[in-house]
Amino acid sequence: MFLAHRNGQPARAVETEADADGAIWLDLVDPTETERDLAARLVGKIIPQRADLEEIESSSRLHLEEDAVYMSLPLVRRTDTDLYSSPIGFVLLPARLVTIRFSDYASFDNAARRIVETPEAITSEDAFVMILECIVDRLADVLEHVGLNLNQLSRDVFSGYDPKSGTQLAAWQRAILRRVGHAEDFSSLVRDSLLGLDRIAIFISETRKQTLPRPLAARLSTVSRDVTSLTDFVAQLSNKIQFLLDAALGFISIEQNDSMKILTVVSFIGVAPTLIAGVYGMNFKDIPELTWAYGYWYALSAMSTSVILPLLWFWHRGWLKAGTR
Amino acid sequence: MFLAHRNGQPARAVETEADADGAIWLDLVDPTETERDLAARLVGKIIPQRADLEEIESSSRLHLEEDAVYMSLPLVRRTDTDLYSSPIGFVLLPARLVTIRFSDYASFDNAARRIVETPEAITSEDAFVMILECIVDRLADVLEHVGLNLNQLSRDVFSGYDPKSGTQLAAWQRAILRRVGHAEDFSSLVRDSLLGLDRIAIFISETRKQTLPRPLAARLSTVSRDVTSLTDFVAQLSNKIQFLLDAALGFISIEQNDSMKILTVVSFIGVAPTLIAGVYGMNFKDIPELTWAYGYWYALSAMSTSVILPLLWFWHRGWLKAGTR
Amino acid sequence: MFLAHRNGQPARAVETEADADGAIWLDLVDPTETERDLAARLVGKIIPQRADLEEIESSSRLHLEEDAVYMSLPLVRRTDTDLYSSPIGFVLLPARLVTIRFSDYASFDNAARRIVETPEAITSEDAFVMILECIVDRLADVLEHVGLNLNQLSRDVFSGYDPKSGTQLAAWQRAILRRVGHAEDFSSLVRDSLLGLDRIAIFISETRKQTLPRPLAARLSTVSRDVTSLTDFVAQLSNKIQFLLDAALGFISIEQNDSMKILTVVSFIGVAPTLIAGVYGMNFKDIPELTWAYGYWYALSAMSTSVILPLLWFWHRGWLKAGTR
Amino acid sequence: MFLAHRNGQPARAVETEADADGAIWLDLVDPTETERDLAARLVGKIIPQRADLEEIESSSRLHLEEDAVYMSLPLVRRTDTDLYSSPIGFVLLPARLVTIRFSDYASFDNAARRIVETPEAITSEDAFVMILECIVDRLADVLEHVGLNLNQLSRDVFSGYDPKSGTQLAAWQRAILRRVGHAEDFSSLVRDSLLGLDRIAIFISETRKQTLPRPLAARLSTVSRDVTSLTDFVAQLSNKIQFLLDAALGFISIEQNDSMKILTVVSFIGVAPTLIAGVYGMNFKDIPELTWAYGYWYALSAMSTSVILPLLWFWHRGWLKAGTR
Amino acid sequence: MFLAHRNGQPARAVETEADADGAIWLDLVDPTETERDLAARLVGKIIPQRADLEEIESSSRLHLEEDAVYMSLPLVRRTDTDLYSSPIGFVLLPARLVTIRFSDYASFDNAARRIVETPEAITSEDAFVMILECIVDRLADVLEHVGLNLNQLSRDVFSGYDPKSGTQLAAWQRAILRRVGHAEDFSSLVRDSLLGLDRIAIFISETRKQTLPRPLAARLSTVSRDVTSLTDFVAQLSNKIQFLLDAALGFISIEQNDSMKILTVVSFIGVAPTLIAGVYGMNFKDIPELTWAYGYWYALSAMSTSVILPLLWFWHRGWLKAGTR
Ligand SMILES: [Mg+2]
Ligand SMILES: [Mg+2]
Ligand SMILES: [Mg+2]
Ligand SMILES: [Mg+2]
Ligand SMILES: [Mg+2]
Ligand SMILES: [Mg+2]
Ligand SMILES: [Mg+2]
Ligand SMILES: [Mg+2]
Ligand SMILES: [Mg+2]
Ligand SMILES: [Mg+2]
Ligand SMILES: [Mg+2]
Ligand SMILES: [Mg+2]
Ligand SMILES: [Mg+2]
Ligand SMILES: [Mg+2]
Ligand SMILES: [Mg+2]
Ligand SMILES: [Mg+2]
Ligand SMILES: [Mg+2]
Ligand SMILES: [Mg+2]
Ligand SMILES: [Mg+2]
Ligand SMILES: [Mg+2]
Ligand SMILES: [Mg+2]
Ligand SMILES: [Mg+2]
Ligand SMILES: [Mg+2]
Ligand SMILES: [Mg+2]
Ligand SMILES: [Mg+2]
Ligand SMILES: [Mg+2]
Ligand SMILES: [Mg+2]
Ligand SMILES: [Mg+2]
Ligand SMILES: [Mg+2]
Ligand SMILES: [Mg+2]
Ligand SMILES: [Mg+2]
Repeated sequence: MFLAHRNGQPARAVETEADADGAIWLDLVDPTETERDLAARLVGKIIPQRADLEEIESSSRLHLEEDAVYMSLPLVRRTDTDLYSSPIGFVLLPARLVTIRFSDYASFDNAARRIVETPEAITSEDAFVMILECIVDRLADVLEHVGLNLNQLSRDVFSGYDPKSGTQLAAWQRAILRRVGHAEDFSSLVRDSLLGLDRIAIFISETRKQTLPRPLAARLSTVSRDVTSLTDFVAQLSNKIQFLLDAALGFISIEQNDSMKILTVVSFIGVAPTLIAGVYGMNFKDIPELTWAYGYWYALSAMSTSVILPLLWFWHRGWLKAGTR
Repeated sequence: MFLAHRNGQPARAVETEADADGAIWLDLVDPTETERDLAARLVGKIIPQRADLEEIESSSRLHLEEDAVYMSLPLVRRTDTDLYSSPIGFVLLPARLVTIRFSDYASFDNAARRIVETPEAITSEDAFVMILECIVDRLADVLEHVGLNLNQLSRDVFSGYDPKSGTQLAAWQRAILRRVGHAEDFSSLVRDSLLGLDRIAIFISETRKQTLPRPLAARLSTVSRDVTSLTDFVAQLSNKIQFLLDAALGFISIEQNDSMKILTVVSFIGVAPTLIAGVYGMNFKDIPELTWAYGYWYALSAMSTSVILPLLWFWHRGWLKAGTR
Repeated sequence: MFLAHRNGQPARAVETEADADGAIWLDLVDPTETERDLAARLVGKIIPQRADLEEIESSSRLHLEEDAVYMSLPLVRRTDTDLYSSPIGFVLLPARLVTIRFSDYASFDNAARRIVETPEAITSEDAFVMILECIVDRLADVLEHVGLNLNQLSRDVFSGYDPKSGTQLAAWQRAILRRVGHAEDFSSLVRDSLLGLDRIAIFISETRKQTLPRPLAARLSTVSRDVTSLTDFVAQLSNKIQFLLDAALGFISIEQNDSMKILTVVSFIGVAPTLIAGVYGMNFKDIPELTWAYGYWYALSAMSTSVILPLLWFWHRGWLKAGTR
Repeated sequence: MFLAHRNGQPARAVETEADADGAIWLDLVDPTETERDLAARLVGKIIPQRADLEEIESSSRLHLEEDAVYMSLPLVRRTDTDLYSSPIGFVLLPARLVTIRFSDYASFDNAARRIVETPEAITSEDAFVMILECIVDRLADVLEHVGLNLNQLSRDVFSGYDPKSGTQLAAWQRAILRRVGHAEDFSSLVRDSLLGLDRIAIFISETRKQTLPRPLAARLSTVSRDVTSLTDFVAQLSNKIQFLLDAALGFISIEQNDSMKILTVVSFIGVAPTLIAGVYGMNFKDIPELTWAYGYWYALSAMSTSVILPLLWFWHRGWLKAGTR
Repeated sequence: MFLAHRNGQPARAVETEADADGAIWLDLVDPTETERDLAARLVGKIIPQRADLEEIESSSRLHLEEDAVYMSLPLVRRTDTDLYSSPIGFVLLPARLVTIRFSDYASFDNAARRIVETPEAITSEDAFVMILECIVDRLADVLEHVGLNLNQLSRDVFSGYDPKSGTQLAAWQRAILRRVGHAEDFSSLVRDSLLGLDRIAIFISETRKQTLPRPLAARLSTVSRDVTSLTDFVAQLSNKIQFLLDAALGFISIEQNDSMKILTVVSFIGVAPTLIAGVYGMNFKDIPELTWAYGYWYALSAMSTSVILPLLWFWHRGWLKAGTR
C-alpha cells in the first residue's frame, strides 16, 4: 500500500506520480517493488528494503545521505491474539517525509488523523515529530494495559491453583509460566522500540541542531523525556516479571508436593493391612487365630484399625485437608 | 467530595462558588461531574479526569498550560486489609491549588490540619509544598512499619514450619510466599509513588526557578533528598524480599522432603515382613518351617525383627526425629 | 545512664547539673525521662526521643536548629548470641556534644578512652569526629570477623553433610540456611549503619564547611573514604552470601535425593521376590514346582537371586555407596 | 598462509620479499615460523606470537613501539557446527598494516574484497579501519541470526515437551539446557570481541589524535557507536537467555512431575485390589464369602470397583489427561 | 626470611645491618620478630605486623607517616592444590622500599629478577612500580588459566553425567558444584587483590603527584588501566560462574529424575502380576481357573503379558533408554 498525506486533506492512495503532488508524508505499507520504485522516483532517493531496516548496528539504523536522514527502528505491535515486532523506516527530506513499514499501527493512523485535522501548512519535520509523538502515546497506553495484566497475573499466581477449577494442575502451571514468558517477551520488544525511538530523537536533534525550529526541538526533547519515563516503567515491569517467575516456581513446587502427598499417604496406609492379610495367609500348621470362632472378623478389625488410626493421625495433622490454602 | 481549605480556618464543603471564596486549596475527592465542573469554573481551567491522571508518560504527568502547572502521580494507600495505588493530580495556579484524588489519605488530612493551624496567610505554592512534605512523612512512617513486618517475616521463614502449630504444611508455605509477594507489591507501589514525587519536585523547581521564594525552594530540595533516602530504603527492602523469597524456597524444599521421609521410611519397612509372609504363604509340599511346633511364632519374630532392626538403624541416624530442627 | 566525659579525666555519672561542669561530651545511654530533662536543661536544647531517632527520611535524621546539629543513624550491635540495630543520636553544639543511645557499644567505650587519654583540651567537634572514627574502626573489625565466618560457612556448604556427624540431615540443612540468613541480616544492618555514617560525614562537612578546622575536615573525609571501602567490602560479602545460598540449595537437592535413593533401591528390590512368593502361593491344582522335592529351596534360591543380581548391579554402578562424596 | 593485499589488485600469496612489493596490508593466517620471519623482515618489526596475542591485560593488548601500533583482541568465529574465539593481532605501521590471525573470518574476506574494489590508493590506516568496519558488520549479522535462534528457543521452551515427538523427556530437557548454554557462550564470546574492538577504536583515536585524517576519525567513532549499540543488543540477549534458563527449569520441574504422576496414580490404584486378594487368601477356618456360590465373582467385582472408582475420580480431576497442555 | 635486592646484583639474605648496604628493596617474607626489628632499625620506621596489614578500611591500608608511604593489600596465591589470600605490605621511603609478605609469590620472584637484570641504578619508586607490574602480569596469567578451566567446567556441566564413568551420580554432582564454588572463591579473591592494587596505584599517584618522575607516573597509570581490564575480565568470569551454577542445578534436577525414573517404572510394573498372583492365591471354593488343565500356565502367561505390555509401551516412549542424552 502507498498512501500520501497532506495537512487538511484526507489520505490518498498513490498510483501515479501525480497522486503524491503536494503530499508532505509518503507512507509505504508493506510496499510492492513497483510502489517502492515509484516512491524512489518521487523523492529522488533510494528507499530501503526490509532487510536494510532490520539491521541492528546504529550506523545502519541512523545515517545521512546528503540532505536525507535515514532512520529505522523495530516497532512492537500487539493484537488480541498476537505479539510481534517489525521494522519501520523513515527517510526525512527537506520537502517530504517517507515512511516504510510492514504492519498496521494504531500510532500511524493517529498521526495521519492529526495531520488531516491540522488546518495550517506543516513541514516534513512536523510530520516526523508528530509520528514519534503518536508512537510514544500508543506505547504508553499499551504499557498501562500490560501493567494491569501483570497485576492480574500476580493475583493468579498468589491465589494459587484451584483444584475445583476443572483445569489440570500441570496445565494450569504451564499456563502461568507461559503468561510470565509472554509478559517478558512483550517488555523486551517494547524496550527495543523505546531504545530505537530514543536514538532517533537524539540523532535528529544532533544532526539538525542548527536548523530545527525551536518548538520542534522542544517537542523532540519531550519525546526523549517520555521515552525515559516509559523505559523506567518497563524496567519496573521487568523486575516484577522476574519476581513473579521465581514466586510461580515456588508455588509450583508447593502444589506438586501437596497433590502427591495424598497419594503417598494412601500408599503408606496400605502397608499394614496387606501385611496382616499376608500373615494370616501363611500356611503354618498351627496358627491359633485361624481357628478362633470370630478369627476372620478379628482380622478384619485389625486391618481396619491399622488403616483408621494413621488416617486419624494424618487428619489431625491436617495432611488430608488438601483444600486448605 | 469537594473541600476548600483556608489557613487558620477549618475546611468547608464546596457546593456553590461562594463556598470557595478565599480558599487557597481546593480538594476534590473522587469528584462527581458537577463538582469537577464547579471547580473548573472556579479556577477557569480544565480539571483532569481520572484517566488523564493515570497516564504514565512524563509529558502527560507533568505539563504547563499558561500559568497552570498540571502534575500527577500514583500514590499508594495501605489499610489494615488492603493495598492499592490510585492517581492524584495537582493543578497549581498563582492564586490557588487544586488537588484531585480518589481515595482518603492520611497525608492529605495532615496537610489540611497544618494549614488550619497556620495563622499567617499562605500561598498556593506553600500549600503544595506542605502536601508533598506530608506525603513524604507518611510514606516514611509506612516504610518503617513495612521494615518491621519484614523482620518478622524473616524470623518466620528462618524459624521454619512448626508441625505443632495446627496449620497444614502447604498452607503455611503458601502463606509465607504470599507475605513475600505482598511485601514486594508494596515496595513496588511505594517506589512508583517516590519516583512520581521526585519528578514533581524536580519539575516544579525547574519551571518555577525564577519565581519560587528561596525558603520554598529549600523545602522542595529537602523533599527531593528525603525521597532519595526513602528510595534507598526501599531498594534495601527489595533486596531483602528477594533474598527471603530464595531462602523460603530453600526451606520449603527441606520441609517437604523432611515430611515425606517418614512416609518413605515406613513404606520401606513394610517390604521385608510382607515378603516373609509371602514365603510362608507358598503352597510347596515340603516347607519344613510350616510344621515346626513354634513355626508361626518363629515367623512372627522374624517379621518383627525385620521391622525393628532397620527402625533402630533409622532412629540411630536421626531419620525419625522429624521434630529436630 | 548519663555520663559526662572530659579530656584528661575519667568519665563521671551525671545526677545534678554540677556533675556536667566542663564536660565536652554528654553521653545518654537508654536515658530516663529525668536524665533527658536534665540534659535538655544543661544544653538548652530539645533532646530527641527514641522514636525521633528511628525516623528514616534524611530530613528527620539530619537537620539544623540554630547552632545545634541534630544527627541520627541506626548502629548495628553484635554480641556472641545476638544481633540487632538500635538508633543513636548526636546533638552537636558549639560547646558540647550530646549523644543518645540505647545500647552498649565498644566503639563508644573506645572513644571515651581516647578522650580520657588526650591531655590537651578538645572541642565538641573533636569529640564527635573521634566517635565516628571509633565506630568505623569497630565496624571494620567486626566485618573482618564476619568475612572469616563466611569462609567457614563456605567450607561447610561445599564439604557437605556428613552422615556420621550425628545431626539429622534436615537439621543440618536448616542450620546452613540459617547461617546464610544470619550473615545476610548482618550485612544488611552494617550497610544501613555505613550509609548513615556516610550521610552524617557529608552533612557535617557541608554545614560546617566554613568553620570546621582543616585537620578535622581531613579526618572527616578519611572517615568517608573508610566508609566507602567498607561498603565495597560488604557488597562483596553480600555477593558471596547470595552465591552461598544458591550453592546450598543445590547441595540440599543433591543430599536429599542421595538419601532417598537407597530407600528407593530397597523398595525396588522387594518387587521380584514378593512376586515369586505370590506365584507359589497360588492355589492352582497343578503347579509342578510345588511338588518338586527341593521345590521350596528352589523358590528361596530364585528369590535370593532376584534380590542379589540387581543389588550387584547397583553396587557396580555405585548407587549403594552413599558415603562417596 | 601469508597474503598481500593492494588496492585495485587481487590478493597475492607471499613467498619472497618481492611478493609484498607495494602491498598495503600483509595478512598472516596461522603463519609458519618462516612466514612470520619473512613478515618481520619486510616491516622491520617483531611480529607477535599467538601467546602474545592471547594476553588479557590492556597493556599487552594495546601498546606502541616507536612508529608501530600493536593491537590484539579475541574474535569469535561461528560455523555451522562449532563456536570458538581465537586472537587476532594488528601491527599498524605508517606504510603498512600487518594482521595475524589463526582462523578464517568472513569479515577479513569482505575487507580484502573491498580493498580490491577500491580503485584509488589507500593508506595502511584506511585498510585498518576497513577491517574494523567489516568485523562490526559481520558481528551485527551474526547477532541478528542469534536473536532469531533465541526466539525459536523461547518458543520451544514455552510450548514444552511433546510426548509424541519420539525423543525422550530427559533428552529433550538436556537439549534445551544445552541450547541455552550455547547461546550464553556465544553472547559471552561476542561481548569479549566487542569490548576488544571498542578498546582498539579508542586507543587508535587517542594515540593518533593529531595525525588521523578527519574522515577516518569520523569512521572510527562510527565504529565505536556501532559497538555500543551491539553491546546493548548482546546485553538484551543475555537477559533473555537468563530468563529462558529460569523458565526452562520451571518447565522441567512441571514436566517431570507430570510424567511421574501417572506412574504414581497406577501404583496407588494397585493397593486396594491387592489387599482384597490378600484378605481372601487368608486361611481362617470360617470366612463366609469363601463359600458363597458366586464368591469369586463377588471378589473380582470388588477388586474391579476398587480400581475403577478412584480411576474415575482421577479422570474427573484431570489427572490422567497427561496430554493436556 | 629477609632479603635485600640491589640492581645488577643477586639478592642477599640480611642478617646484620651491613647486609643491607646499598639495597634498594628490603623484602621480609614471613619475618621473625628479630628480622622485623632489624628492618625497623635499618629504615628508622615502624614495620607493620600481619594484623595491621589485614585491616580492611582504607585508612589502615593506605597512609602516610612523614616521608614514608604505608600500603597494604590482600594478594591471592594459587598453588596446584590450594588457594588462599594473604596480606602484603609496602613501606615506600625516599631511599628504600620495604615489603612485608607471608607467602611465596611468583610475582615477587619476577620483580627481583628484573631488578637483578637492570644494569643502571634504580630508585625505590622504580622498584615499587616494578613489583606492581609483576603482580598485574601474574594475575593476568592466572586469570587466563582460570578462564580456560571455566570453559572445561562449562563443557563438563553441559555434557552431563556419564553413567559409564565409574563415579557415582551424586559424587559427580557434588564435584561439579565444588568446582563452581572454587571458581567463585578464586574470582572473589582476585577481585579483592585487583581492588587493592587499584587503590594503591591511585594513592601513590595522588600523594606523589608533584615528585613522581613522568615515566613512572605513566607506568602507574598503565597499571591502573590493566587493573581495570582485568576487573572487567573477572566480572565476565563471575557472570559465567553464576550462569554455570544455575545450569548445573538444572542438570542435577534432570539427572536425578532420569535415574529415579527406571526404578519407578519397575516398581509400577510389579503391581499387575502381584495382583494376579494374589487373585489366584485366594481361597474361594469355586475359582474355575484353578482347576483348568493349563491354569498355572495361563496365569503365568497373564502375568508375563501384564509385565511385557507396559514395558513395550515404555520402551516405545523412550522411557527405558536412560542412556539417551
Ligand atoms: Mg523485560
Ligand atoms: Mg512501571
Ligand atoms: Mg512498578
Ligand atoms: Mg512497572
Ligand atoms: Mg511494577
Ligand atoms: Mg531470584
Ligand atoms: Mg530457583
Ligand atoms: Mg520492590
Ligand atoms: Mg529499604
Ligand atoms: Mg535495610
Ligand atoms: Mg532495609
Ligand atoms: Mg538468588
Ligand atoms: Mg541485605
Ligand atoms: Mg571483601
Ligand atoms: Mg571478599
Ligand atoms: Mg566477599
Ligand atoms: Mg552485604
Ligand atoms: Mg542465581
Ligand atoms: Mg552472556
Ligand atoms: Mg541483544
Ligand atoms: Mg535485543
Ligand atoms: Mg531481550
Ligand atoms: Mg531483544
Ligand atoms: Mg531468576
Ligand atoms: Mg565473589
Ligand atoms: Mg572475565
Ligand atoms: Mg572474559
Ligand atoms: Mg567470559
Ligand atoms: Mg569472578
Ligand atoms: Mg538465575
Ligand atoms: Mg531448583
